[in-house]
Amino acid sequence: MAKRFSPDQYVSGILAGDRVMLSRAITLVESKLPTDQDLAQTVIDKVLPHSGNSVRIGITGVPGVGKSTFIETFGNYLIQEQGKKLAVLAIDPTSQRSGGSILGDKTRMESLSINQQAYIRPSPAGKSLGGVTRSTRETIILCEAAGFDAVIVETVGVGQSETAVHAMVDFFLLLMLAGAGDELQGIKRGIMEMADAIAITKADGSNISKAKSARAEYQNAIHLYPLAASGWSPKVSVCSAIAQTGLDTIWQTITDYLILTQKNGYFDKKRRDQNLQWMYETIRQGLEDNFYSHQQVKDQLPAIAEQVKLGQKSAFAAAAELLRLV
Amino acid sequence: MAKRFSPDQYVSGILAGDRVMLSRAITLVESKLPTDQDLAQTVIDKVLPHSGNSVRIGITGVPGVGKSTFIETFGNYLIQEQGKKLAVLAIDPTSQRSGGSILGDKTRMESLSINQQAYIRPSPAGKSLGGVTRSTRETIILCEAAGFDAVIVETVGVGQSETAVHAMVDFFLLLMLAGAGDELQGIKRGIMEMADAIAITKADGSNISKAKSARAEYQNAIHLYPLAASGWSPKVSVCSAIAQTGLDTIWQTITDYLILTQKNGYFDKKRRDQNLQWMYETIRQGLEDNFYSHQQVKDQLPAIAEQVKLGQKSAFAAAAELLRLV
Repeated sequence: MAKRFSPDQYVSGILAGDRVMLSRAITLVESKLPTDQDLAQTVIDKVLPHSGNSVRIGITGVPGVGKSTFIETFGNYLIQEQGKKLAVLAIDPTSQRSGGSILGDKTRMESLSINQQAYIRPSPAGKSLGGVTRSTRETIILCEAAGFDAVIVETVGVGQSETAVHAMVDFFLLLMLAGAGDELQGIKRGIMEMADAIAITKADGSNISKAKSARAEYQNAIHLYPLAASGWSPKVSVCSAIAQTGLDTIWQTITDYLILTQKNGYFDKKRRDQNLQWMYETIRQGLEDNFYSHQQVKDQLPAIAEQVKLGQKSAFAAAAELLRLV
Repeated sequence: MAKRFSPDQYVSGILAGDRVMLSRAITLVESKLPTDQDLAQTVIDKVLPHSGNSVRIGITGVPGVGKSTFIETFGNYLIQEQGKKLAVLAIDPTSQRSGGSILGDKTRMESLSINQQAYIRPSPAGKSLGGVTRSTRETIILCEAAGFDAVIVETVGVGQSETAVHAMVDFFLLLMLAGAGDELQGIKRGIMEMADAIAITKADGSNISKAKSARAEYQNAIHLYPLAASGWSPKVSVCSAIAQTGLDTIWQTITDYLILTQKNGYFDKKRRDQNLQWMYETIRQGLEDNFYSHQQVKDQLPAIAEQVKLGQKSAFAAAAELLRLV
């Protein structure tokens, strides 16, 4: 086991912007050891007053949309043109990356990974969605305390993870391809309605006109959606990582969103609601973890679940039977 | 307290199609008394092998869309033209109807309520969404065992209840008004994407052309959605309760959906998944009910939640603190 430090050593390292200490604290957050978890909680509670001062941006899109390339290009834009310090985190529970291998992501985002104003942390390996979600939420807090004022949380647009990301960011950006037909099928129903903005990627060369007509099409479709509680109407734009175009428009959209929602109070309300939601979800997860790790439940669940699936036992009778075991 | 019968009396009454016995069993399901709940579970487990043989149709729409009128008209059509026995249930946790007042709904659906082939049961009063969801799911089983081969579950399209209804039906129908502008705002984001069909109501008189152009507009918008797991593309149609038009098209759409999904296996898979989902949800609810009714949790939750909202305590530390209390 790697060396552990005192809570104050982690805290002062993080607050001083020490990236090695930040990485070590994130390792604690990702650890399954109860002693590490306790230490992580102490550190998080201590840095909490220094967190919150970043714009949290969720980015999703199907494989092939050019997500890594976009994040690298947009990330460099944020650092160079907007003077941001950027952390890039990933939620990807299906990731097969070997433990601690940051190499995968560093290769994907070559120039960003060597930029001193950027910190890239891949999804922890070998964790469930719930586990990744939890550690990513805590990692956001640590990164903010270390002075990163823009946090990108990326996920693949094919599963449940978008909902998890949506629940932890201020702004949700969906990347899409123009005229992709089949690729569109990969975007889960409902994700489009979560987006605060859609960016059509790869709008360069012979793709430009296709991308622009896709923009018009999506903008029309989005007009049919009911107004979001934020009072914000989602925007659709085109961009190109190769031609380095459209990045300023996307950042302007995010800025406009922040101005609107900070003015109408939605920004603060959403953050507070997210905080509470994290608490209730953590409680629910704790209760379920205890329940499903109970030996008798583990023994009897498979047979009972099978009876329920086949309609031989009602869901309610089955639940009552299992609940009586603990 | 009203008289209670033996489980076998309920069961034989229900299986014989005795509506009074059916109503009494539903009252058990809705009761909060543990003895009633135990009795209800016994009855449900006994009738379970006789359930499942209905098409379960969820119907939602904002107030003003003419939901009751549509259900009355469509219900009479199902009974008279399709030879169905129809049960109409409601999920409306905000309902302020006084306990047991079926009168409200009976007035709303006058001709259906006196039809011997129809059974109308309003949402139980004084229950949370979780409570209504649970009793409605059990009520579907009882109605099916009593021989009803079409079950409509209605809800108001403004809250969380659509997701609950969607998770218990085979087919989800969204009613919408043509060119309603403001009314559209009442439909929660995401509901449109859950719909297997959209029906534009009140397509009569001077409204017809407006309704038809709305149909084209929504059909176009829906084309942009990714294909659902069912393999089904949602259909949009127009209808009128006054002119009695469009009902056959809607029923044909439902029939087409059933044929497709029964053939490709989605229908059975969805029912089985729903059964399992009900079980896991019931377990989760049981765990949370126990936890949140614990006296120390009740005492300390408000202050801790406030600290979390204000960012003074991390969600995870708060959850851990509360979980340690039980």
